[in-house]
Amino acid sequence: MSAGTPAPAGTTKGERMPRRDDYGHIASFPTRWNDNDVYGHVNNVVYYAAMDSAVNAWMIAQGLDIEHGDAIGLVVSSSCDYHASGAYPDVLEVGVRIGRLGSSSVTWETGIFRASDSELLATGRFVHVFVDRASRRPTPVPAPLRAAMERDLIVDPE
Amino acid sequence: MSAGTPAPAGTTKGERMPRRDDYGHIASFPTRWNDNDVYGHVNNVVYYAAMDSAVNAWMIAQGLDIEHGDAIGLVVSSSCDYHASGAYPDVLEVGVRIGRLGSSSVTWETGIFRASDSELLATGRFVHVFVDRASRRPTPVPAPLRAAMERDLIVDPE
Amino acid sequence: MSAGTPAPAGTTKGERMPRRDDYGHIASFPTRWNDNDVYGHVNNVVYYAAMDSAVNAWMIAQGLDIEHGDAIGLVVSSSCDYHASGAYPDVLEVGVRIGRLGSSSVTWETGIFRASDSELLATGRFVHVFVDRASRRPTPVPAPLRAAMERDLIVDPE
Amino acid sequence: MSAGTPAPAGTTKGERMPRRDDYGHIASFPTRWNDNDVYGHVNNVVYYAAMDSAVNAWMIAQGLDIEHGDAIGLVVSSSCDYHASGAYPDVLEVGVRIGRLGSSSVTWETGIFRASDSELLATGRFVHVFVDRASRRPTPVPAPLRAAMERDLIVDPE
Repeated sequence: MSAGTPAPAGTTKGERMPRRDDYGHIASFPTRWNDNDVYGHVNNVVYYAAMDSAVNAWMIAQGLDIEHGDAIGLVVSSSCDYHASGAYPDVLEVGVRIGRLGSSSVTWETGIFRASDSELLATGRFVHVFVDRASRRPTPVPAPLRAAMERDLIVDPE
Repeated sequence: MSAGTPAPAGTTKGERMPRRDDYGHIASFPTRWNDNDVYGHVNNVVYYAAMDSAVNAWMIAQGLDIEHGDAIGLVVSSSCDYHASGAYPDVLEVGVRIGRLGSSSVTWETGIFRASDSELLATGRFVHVFVDRASRRPTPVPAPLRAAMERDLIVDPE
Repeated sequence: MSAGTPAPAGTTKGERMPRRDDYGHIASFPTRWNDNDVYGHVNNVVYYAAMDSAVNAWMIAQGLDIEHGDAIGLVVSSSCDYHASGAYPDVLEVGVRIGRLGSSSVTWETGIFRASDSELLATGRFVHVFVDRASRRPTPVPAPLRAAMERDLIVDPE
Repeated sequence: MSAGTPAPAGTTKGERMPRRDDYGHIASFPTRWNDNDVYGHVNNVVYYAAMDSAVNAWMIAQGLDIEHGDAIGLVVSSSCDYHASGAYPDVLEVGVRIGRLGSSSVTWETGIFRASDSELLATGRFVHVFVDRASRRPTPVPAPLRAAMERDLIVDPE
C-alpha cells in the first residue's frame, strides 16, 4: 500500500525530526511512473530502493567494485518510518549518514525528503555486513571505504 | 544490495525462529528474473514487496475494496530481518499473522520461506493505519475485515 | 501508464488471437501490489517482466547456468501488444513458444492470459542473442538448451 | 536478462542512429541498484519504465491530471531495440518526440542515452490511446496537451 501518515502526523515526542543538513551525503532520486500505487502515492517499498541506491552509489563512487571486489555488503536488517506521502513525479532526496561503524558492519541512517519543499517523507536505516564474496564470511570494511565513511558520513547531529 | 546473512547466521538468542505453521495465512510469491541483483540473490527490497502483496491480497479476498472503499491502509512503519538468501527462480512463501490489532491500526508479522525446503529467509513486520480515503484521518478497521483478522490471523505461536 | 485497450478492442483482422494451447510452456506469474499503477491496472512494463521471468525460468530448468555458464542471453529487441487490462491480485499465465531459432539467436513469442478466465491480455515477443560471457561475442545456443527448445517450444499453431 | 548487443553491434543499414538533439524533450533517469540484473547490466525491462516515466512526467508538466482528469492514456503497443548496455549507477537520458499524432492516439518515439558519454543505449516507441476515464472509450487528446505536443515534440529529424 501507499506509505504515509494519517492526517495528525505522528512524531516521536521530544525528538526533533532530521533535516537535510544532518546528513553527510545527499543523493537525488527521481520517482518513476510505476512507483505510485493505486492510492496515488509512492509505494512504501520504493523508499527502501531509494536508500539502497543512494548508499551503493556512494560506495561505488568511493571505489567499491561491485563486480569483482573481494568484499560485498549484505543487508541483514532494515527499517523505515513514514512521515508524509510522496507522489510521482516528485524528485526525492536521500540524505545518508552512518550511525555505527563496526569492524565489518555499518549501520546506515537515511532521511528521505521531497526535493521541491524539503519536507521529510521517511527516515530509514539498514545494516550492512561485509562478507568475502566467495566464502560469505564476515570480512573487514575495505580500508579506503572505511576512511571515506569516517571522513564524510559520521555526522554528529546534536 | 543482496539480502542475506554472513556465514555464521545470526539468530536472536533464546528465541526460536518462526515456522510456517506459526502463521494463519500463507501466500505464494514466485520470484522474478529482475528480483535478483548483481550478487545473484533476491534484493532486500523485494521482501517488502512480498509482504505488501501477501497482506493486501488477503485483505482484498476478505472484501477490502481498494478502488472505491472508504478506508485505505497506509503504512506508517516497517522493518525486516534477513536470515538467509533466496535467488530467482525460487518460489517464496509468505506467512502472515497479526501481532497487534488496534482500533484503526494493525501490526502485521510475516515470515518469508523458500518453498522448496521451507528455510526461513526473512522475518518482517509493518504497521497499517486505516484512514478515510478523502480526509486521510484515522478511521476504524472495517468491521468485516476486523472479524476476519480476529478469526484467521491472530495466532498465539507459543 | 496502464496497459489495455479502449472499449472497442482492436484485433488484427483476419488473424485469430492465440490461445493457451498455442504455447509449449505455461508459467504462472502472480501480480504484486505495486504492479498496479494509478489507473488501477497492471502497468504495461510488468508484462515484459513476466515474459523475461517465464523464459529465463524455463531455460534455467533446462540447465542454463546463469551464474557461471559460458553463454548468456542478451535481449536485442522486444515488443508487446496489449489487448485487455489485468489488475492485482490477478494471477497471470505466460505462454511461451519459439518463433525462430537461429544458430545464436532465439525469437521468443509469448501470450499472457488472466488465469481466472483465460482472457488474453497481451502478446509479446523478444529476441535473445547468445554471447560468450567474457568476450560478449555471439556464440551458439548451448546444445542441450537447443534440443529442449526444439522438443518443447517450436509449436506450429497453424 | 540483460539488454545489450553482442560485440559487433547491429545497426540498421542506411539509417543513421538518433542523437540527443533529435528529440524535443530530454528527461533524466538515474538508474537504481536493483535495475541491474545478474549479468551486471540494466535489465531490458527498465528501459520501458524509463520511457513511461519520461513521457508521463512531460504530460503532467503540461497539465495532464492523472488523478482526476477525464482523459487517461492507455498503452496499446510498445517496442524497444537495444544497442548497448547501461549499468547502475549510470544516469540515463530519455529523449522524447512524437512520431504520429492522431485524434485520440499518440505514437511516442524515444532514444535512451547514457548521460556521461551520450552513447545511445536503446530506441523505443509506444502508442497511447486516450480514453475516457469512466467509459474507457476513445476520446480526443485533450486540447492543451495536443497544443504542447505540436509545439514541442513533433520534430523533423532529417
